[in-house]
Amino acid sequence: MCTPARGHDSRAGPHATLAPVLLVPLTRSRTLAAAALLGAAPLAAPLVAQAPPAPAASPLAARYQADADRIIAAALGDSAAWNRVAELTDTFGARLSGTPALERSIDWMLARLREDGFANVRGEPVMVPRWVRGEESATLVSPRRKPLAMLGLGGSVGTPAAGITAPVLVVSSFDELARRGAEAKGKIVLFDVPFTTYDETVRYRGVGATAAAKVGAVAMLLRSVASYSMNTPHTGGLRYDSTTRRIPAAAITAEDAMMLRRMQARGQPVQVTLRMQARTLPDVPSRNVVAELVGRERPEEVVVLGGHIDSWDVGQGAMDDAGGFVAAWEAMRVLKRLGIQPRRTIRLVGWTNEENGLRGGRGYRAAHERELADHVFAMESDNGAFRPNGMRVVGSDSALALVAPIGPLLARIGATAAARGEGEADIGPLLEAGVPGAGLDVDGSKYFWFHHTAADTPDKLDPADVARCVATFGVWAHVLADMPERPPHGATQGTR
Amino acid sequence: MCTPARGHDSRAGPHATLAPVLLVPLTRSRTLAAAALLGAAPLAAPLVAQAPPAPAASPLAARYQADADRIIAAALGDSAAWNRVAELTDTFGARLSGTPALERSIDWMLARLREDGFANVRGEPVMVPRWVRGEESATLVSPRRKPLAMLGLGGSVGTPAAGITAPVLVVSSFDELARRGAEAKGKIVLFDVPFTTYDETVRYRGVGATAAAKVGAVAMLLRSVASYSMNTPHTGGLRYDSTTRRIPAAAITAEDAMMLRRMQARGQPVQVTLRMQARTLPDVPSRNVVAELVGRERPEEVVVLGGHIDSWDVGQGAMDDAGGFVAAWEAMRVLKRLGIQPRRTIRLVGWTNEENGLRGGRGYRAAHERELADHVFAMESDNGAFRPNGMRVVGSDSALALVAPIGPLLARIGATAAARGEGEADIGPLLEAGVPGAGLDVDGSKYFWFHHTAADTPDKLDPADVARCVATFGVWAHVLADMPERPPHGATQGTR
Repeated sequence: MCTPARGHDSRAGPHATLAPVLLVPLTRSRTLAAAALLGAAPLAAPLVAQAPPAPAASPLAARYQADADRIIAAALGDSAAWNRVAELTDTFGARLSGTPALERSIDWMLARLREDGFANVRGEPVMVPRWVRGEESATLVSPRRKPLAMLGLGGSVGTPAAGITAPVLVVSSFDELARRGAEAKGKIVLFDVPFTTYDETVRYRGVGATAAAKVGAVAMLLRSVASYSMNTPHTGGLRYDSTTRRIPAAAITAEDAMMLRRMQARGQPVQVTLRMQARTLPDVPSRNVVAELVGRERPEEVVVLGGHIDSWDVGQGAMDDAGGFVAAWEAMRVLKRLGIQPRRTIRLVGWTNEENGLRGGRGYRAAHERELADHVFAMESDNGAFRPNGMRVVGSDSALALVAPIGPLLARIGATAAARGEGEADIGPLLEAGVPGAGLDVDGSKYFWFHHTAADTPDKLDPADVARCVATFGVWAHVLADMPERPPHGATQGTR
Repeated sequence: MCTPARGHDSRAGPHATLAPVLLVPLTRSRTLAAAALLGAAPLAAPLVAQAPPAPAASPLAARYQADADRIIAAALGDSAAWNRVAELTDTFGARLSGTPALERSIDWMLARLREDGFANVRGEPVMVPRWVRGEESATLVSPRRKPLAMLGLGGSVGTPAAGITAPVLVVSSFDELARRGAEAKGKIVLFDVPFTTYDETVRYRGVGATAAAKVGAVAMLLRSVASYSMNTPHTGGLRYDSTTRRIPAAAITAEDAMMLRRMQARGQPVQVTLRMQARTLPDVPSRNVVAELVGRERPEEVVVLGGHIDSWDVGQGAMDDAGGFVAAWEAMRVLKRLGIQPRRTIRLVGWTNEENGLRGGRGYRAAHERELADHVFAMESDNGAFRPNGMRVVGSDSALALVAPIGPLLARIGATAAARGEGEADIGPLLEAGVPGAGLDVDGSKYFWFHHTAADTPDKLDPADVARCVATFGVWAHVLADMPERPPHGATQGTR
């Protein structure tokens, strides 16, 4: 995910929940990961809380608790979802917009969706940007020579072929840069900004290069936007403005940023050589992936469900966002397998180009502009298919009141949240048009450990958590597509 | 540290204690790290437990509790130790045996030790191995092309210049390799062994290449010996045997090892190209670093205290083991600053070449063979200067009984442990000669996250914890050098 409209806050997070996905060989997670290799092995019983759910408290519960229980049991009955995340991301790796890997992965998705027997499986054409990283490096040359782990920021311009060698000015904020602006001319400005919240910290990735260029800097380095680091650089997009010189920009690791700051504090001259071949080529065609379970009574009314299918060009894009897209896909498979055909159509959408353009989300809305009134609800998962808490709902008070009783249907897996919150980037254009919607609410404590890094790999997701995301999506999609009422469109409340 | 005689067990660890050294901007840790930049800022009061220590329970407590309290207060009064770890490791970076960086860092240590006013500051000559990594890479070429993050294993031979391209056989144990030996001929064997304990898992790094060569493999890949991974390769030494062909060996990340295993399980042909220029050159001179606080009554009797000064050639070797050496060094500085001059001599030793030869530890014993009877006690820290629990003692029952009452002197900082345990590699040759000794006992929960990786940087140590290590070393060194009795030499008990 790329958009800064987030409320993640590392202070709340990483210490409480260190899910040992990778650490411990004999936990349930590892057992599942091992089982996942062998196919659809049943999950251990404790995934479902032993206590029975609360007695039916709403008409909606009376109508749908039995369906919800079947959906939960089916979703948690195997590790098919995790297996598909692994197969997709192992087979195609990272899937940056404009790459053959993304387009081949779309072909694979469409073929599998047809095999699954869904209706109206199609790729909907979208033109996407094509940014190419090329070769790149950053080398500390003074006070000692050391290669710096780095990743150019998406959208950055490159350097001259010989690179840029310049003294470094380390600052910790825009304010400090403003105070020390006179020192920045001809230098590489390093923003060494410790992570607080994503919203706060990502501003430096977004506009740091422009702020540095305004005071005469020749390049910008960024302490990676990361709530934890094992010398891990994080990429992500930047935005130039049209009136300021475009200077090359790259992320280095938190460790190296802190070291350069210490060197500066010791009075040592810090100098770096930055080389980047980054360039932006003309737009190329890509596709949003669409597949449907057609409604039995009101097929023209649509509940949208999905995630994005592109990723940055490092790691495998498993957490961001293959897991979210596959959780939606598997939710539809579960409904189909159970023979559940709701009143309305459930439409799976795999949005392209979320990371560096949002062309998929905008393109979907443009292509379906005339059907917007029939868009009943839009859901996306783009915070990692971690353990779900429920849904964060965006819409009018009356829409929220209508959908909130869906939450308790998921009491068995603890995913009952259904409060007002944030949406997600790709459904943003729909939400802005007044379509009510929701983002999957998950344990976000480690999201910014892996976000946009080489460590975004399938092992970071727990098969049991992915299965819980499938169940959450499945129950919400079914009820929203089947309930007699529909949540009214209206002025969006909550964050896009 | 390199030797496998360890009892670390990740199962006990990482979940309980996620010290937010890097994560959270406003914890004490970050405040200290920030303060560290500004010099010797006082630490916050809560570092010392508020409850008064237990009343004097032993003659030793009556004699030394007041000194211990002064030492603790002085050690915790600033972040000088962490600052020195950072300055040392920022200035010289990694310090592999045989490199100019190690020798320049030794010159720097000797100069600083002289400035500190210690006696008999000297480098004691030791010849050390010189293994050179050279350029290296591993590339997955089938079923898709992907560079694999990797580190050749220390001591490995290289590949031909064109590299070795071969099918990969993934196995999870020596037993599986034995069962599938017939499939290994002409292949690259990958040991995908999840971390359990260091002792168990490091066997594959040590002799995996030889086991693979015995069944006809052309190279060996290893899932990094790591209790957590963010796509992090870990280096470390291997041992060839003299009767088996030497094949190149490298560590890849846990993430990639798991992916290759999944690909194999899917029936996909897995093929890798491995290129390594690794080679071993003739031995070169290095030095153990020695400095003393001369005893006031029995200067010929020596309490040895230290850590190793070399590191692997990645990261900064801050945790392994600059922190341990500097904690010992600072403990001596604290005693000197407080005007404490014990009966016996306290000798700081910075051992060279722990990582790939142990020549420093063996050389120290050889150089001091005739003074061994006067070696009263030998202490080392080589598990990271994390929060100390106390000491793990190696020696006879009577030696243990004599030193155990030192533990409670550190009740204020919770570092009271003084039970039988393991020693450390560099003091091993002394322990084998019957000298009683101890290893600093620390929270090891994250040690194998950073061990032998690019992520071994000073930020992984908390200034408050390093200060507590200084206090622990200071109290033990003072009491052992001053107490009228001395622990008897004798048959070593506990692990070397």
